[in-house]
Amino acid sequence: MKKVDHIGIAVRDLNAVLPYYTDTLGLPLMKIEEVESQKVRVAFIDAGNVKLELLEPMAEESAIFKFLEKKGEGIHHIAFGVVGIEERMEELREKGVQLLNDKPKPGAGGAMVAFLHPKSSNGVLYELCEKE
Amino acid sequence: MKKVDHIGIAVRDLNAVLPYYTDTLGLPLMKIEEVESQKVRVAFIDAGNVKLELLEPMAEESAIFKFLEKKGEGIHHIAFGVVGIEERMEELREKGVQLLNDKPKPGAGGAMVAFLHPKSSNGVLYELCEKE
Repeated sequence: MKKVDHIGIAVRDLNAVLPYYTDTLGLPLMKIEEVESQKVRVAFIDAGNVKLELLEPMAEESAIFKFLEKKGEGIHHIAFGVVGIEERMEELREKGVQLLNDKPKPGAGGAMVAFLHPKSSNGVLYELCEKE
Repeated sequence: MKKVDHIGIAVRDLNAVLPYYTDTLGLPLMKIEEVESQKVRVAFIDAGNVKLELLEPMAEESAIFKFLEKKGEGIHHIAFGVVGIEERMEELREKGVQLLNDKPKPGAGGAMVAFLHPKSSNGVLYELCEKE
């Protein structure tokens, strides 16, 4: 839990939203990729010290699709960069934190990720994220 | 818009939530202060590259009180650190961004702050924040 790797933001239409970040706010687009396992198309925006991860659902079974249906567009999660994600998950479990994943799963940017239940985190969806 | 200064998180009871951040997640508490102008009690948590700003309402007229009533606890805003906040506000206005404040107002940590309307930012409440 050394630092915040990125802030995830749910959007309906990535192409429609991107100019706001790149032109209006003047932040560089780093890359766009599709994460098949989570059925999302993702754009990473460079906000200097952290990345903004814009998430567009590619299918109705995507968690982002469900989030948009329920809450509309907006901030979805905060991701902590970690080293040793399985050990960190186990430590949190031992401290009574409920996790949404039994094991890390592949996320955007080649990372392995796992989510903490918002009920354990006072309404905030936190992600653990480990890069190779 | 050089970097993200902090992420604002609305909580009902700061004292009840703090141990989750300091003990469970193991992040240092930097300070607690009251921002009278916004009727909030604020704790800054050091997440390495950014701060987490936990916001507890001190009165029903606080914007955080209204947020909690409507949406419950969770992520409230993302604050960009800026230099020359009034010029940045004017630039954004000229680009068609709707601001929630005509002029910067005093925020936590001795900063001057202004908010962008979430309608302009695809559902995200962004803050501009300038430190002395």
